[in-house]
Amino acid sequence: MSKLEANRWFTEISDRDGSAFSLRINKKLDEVQSPFQKVEMYETTDFGNLMIIDGCTMVSTRENFFYHEMMSHPALFAHPAPKNVVIIGGGDCGTLREVLKHPDVESVTQIDIDEVVTQMSLKYFPELCASNDDPRATVMFDDGIKYMREATADSIDVIIVDGTDPVGPGEGLFNHAFYTSCLAALREGGILIQQSESPLMHMSLLKDIRCAMKEVGFADLQTLPFPQPIYPSGLWSATLARKGSAFAGFREQDVDNAKFDTEYYNKGIHYGALATPNFMRRAFDDN
Amino acid sequence: MSKLEANRWFTEISDRDGSAFSLRINKKLDEVQSPFQKVEMYETTDFGNLMIIDGCTMVSTRENFFYHEMMSHPALFAHPAPKNVVIIGGGDCGTLREVLKHPDVESVTQIDIDEVVTQMSLKYFPELCASNDDPRATVMFDDGIKYMREATADSIDVIIVDGTDPVGPGEGLFNHAFYTSCLAALREGGILIQQSESPLMHMSLLKDIRCAMKEVGFADLQTLPFPQPIYPSGLWSATLARKGSAFAGFREQDVDNAKFDTEYYNKGIHYGALATPNFMRRAFDDN
Repeated sequence: MSKLEANRWFTEISDRDGSAFSLRINKKLDEVQSPFQKVEMYETTDFGNLMIIDGCTMVSTRENFFYHEMMSHPALFAHPAPKNVVIIGGGDCGTLREVLKHPDVESVTQIDIDEVVTQMSLKYFPELCASNDDPRATVMFDDGIKYMREATADSIDVIIVDGTDPVGPGEGLFNHAFYTSCLAALREGGILIQQSESPLMHMSLLKDIRCAMKEVGFADLQTLPFPQPIYPSGLWSATLARKGSAFAGFREQDVDNAKFDTEYYNKGIHYGALATPNFMRRAFDDN
Repeated sequence: MSKLEANRWFTEISDRDGSAFSLRINKKLDEVQSPFQKVEMYETTDFGNLMIIDGCTMVSTRENFFYHEMMSHPALFAHPAPKNVVIIGGGDCGTLREVLKHPDVESVTQIDIDEVVTQMSLKYFPELCASNDDPRATVMFDDGIKYMREATADSIDVIIVDGTDPVGPGEGLFNHAFYTSCLAALREGGILIQQSESPLMHMSLLKDIRCAMKEVGFADLQTLPFPQPIYPSGLWSATLARKGSAFAGFREQDVDNAKFDTEYYNKGIHYGALATPNFMRRAFDDN
């Protein structure tokens, strides 16, 4: 049985999954206990810098592009003309950067509860924060649940829920009350997208998310699977839902004509993410 | 830093990747040192049974469907009328079972060098061996490299190289000599498909595989990414290549009309696998 020397590896044990994932580290770079959670930063040997929140791997330099691109571009291209975008969570600012690549977006407001995450990201993932000073961006540190509850009705085109797992500060982002606020704040045709865990490991949770979104009145749900090398099972998902269903596809031609670079996302990847694997399709049919 | 108790977890350290993956175990079921490699079997808490070869995770009950389906169905549906199939490696018999789901296949010959792998699979993954007694199947234990070198020219429609990593017994399955044998043994329009490691972690090796296939005369290369939860990075690939290029697509309608079940594969998944992520496309352009 192989052994990991504790001082050379960071290990996240996922008790609920019976699995663990480790990255080899050169050194610990930082650790801050915020009012909400413990944020640690490591320099790894092969994945660049690594952010850990409450013991869970969150972001690494090498592979964050899968997540950040899939949390932003499919939702933005699925909306006919997104102007006003809100990101709940997203403190590392990687999703914000991707959203701001869309020239027709007029405003992006990001509300993360924990300023420490953004401070750490500015220091150790400056590339993810490259667009924080864009005049269209507002970076706030506040309670995203309260923000959505108080948001002006019919004022947002796309809401991106880029939070942690449904435990700790992220818990309130996965229930009827929160989705009801989101539905009210969206304009007709607006889109909600939320990270929705691993389709292989967390199907019961994923079905709960889909159920709750439908029950409050969202339509046209799509659960998009994508690679997530440092999360349990390596396969993650985002679930997209619409207020109303006037426009059901995505702006394919605009994807082809986009004047910005991505590492993962393209038109074929968008189509591919819409191709639900059979085991997911069967689970959703039971929903 | 979390600690894994050695007697409750199996850990594979991937030195070349700076990562490690662990599964929680109930108990060790078996261990056999064959003339070629050490084969171990564990019962895990969440992934069913787990086969380990020379310290590397190979197959688990819970997630092997991704790999076995992607090693078989895309290649078979990409051939206009596959009758005669050869599997090199594949000792767990999961790929064999998938191939035999195709009613028009007339013969499948599997050549794995190590009988112990199949003996262990019969015992601990009986579901993967469910088609071993199909009259169309021939299960041999021999040197697959030699088998391909001596194969009758123009006699095979699809060759599936379902081997281990390019170290140890699998090493000779990744070079010009082997690919030249495969090309000669294939009929015109025939297809070679080979597991080709992680596009995220092993791009240099993947490019070498593609280069070597092209250099010996294969055409129409397609590298298909798919989830592989227990291999490094969770993202794996198979590379498909053709002898000649008369038929470049896949039999979409036959996929829709297929009378067998799959857990992952369907027409949309096939299309999705053809959608090369941008970072891969750029790497291949440099090839």
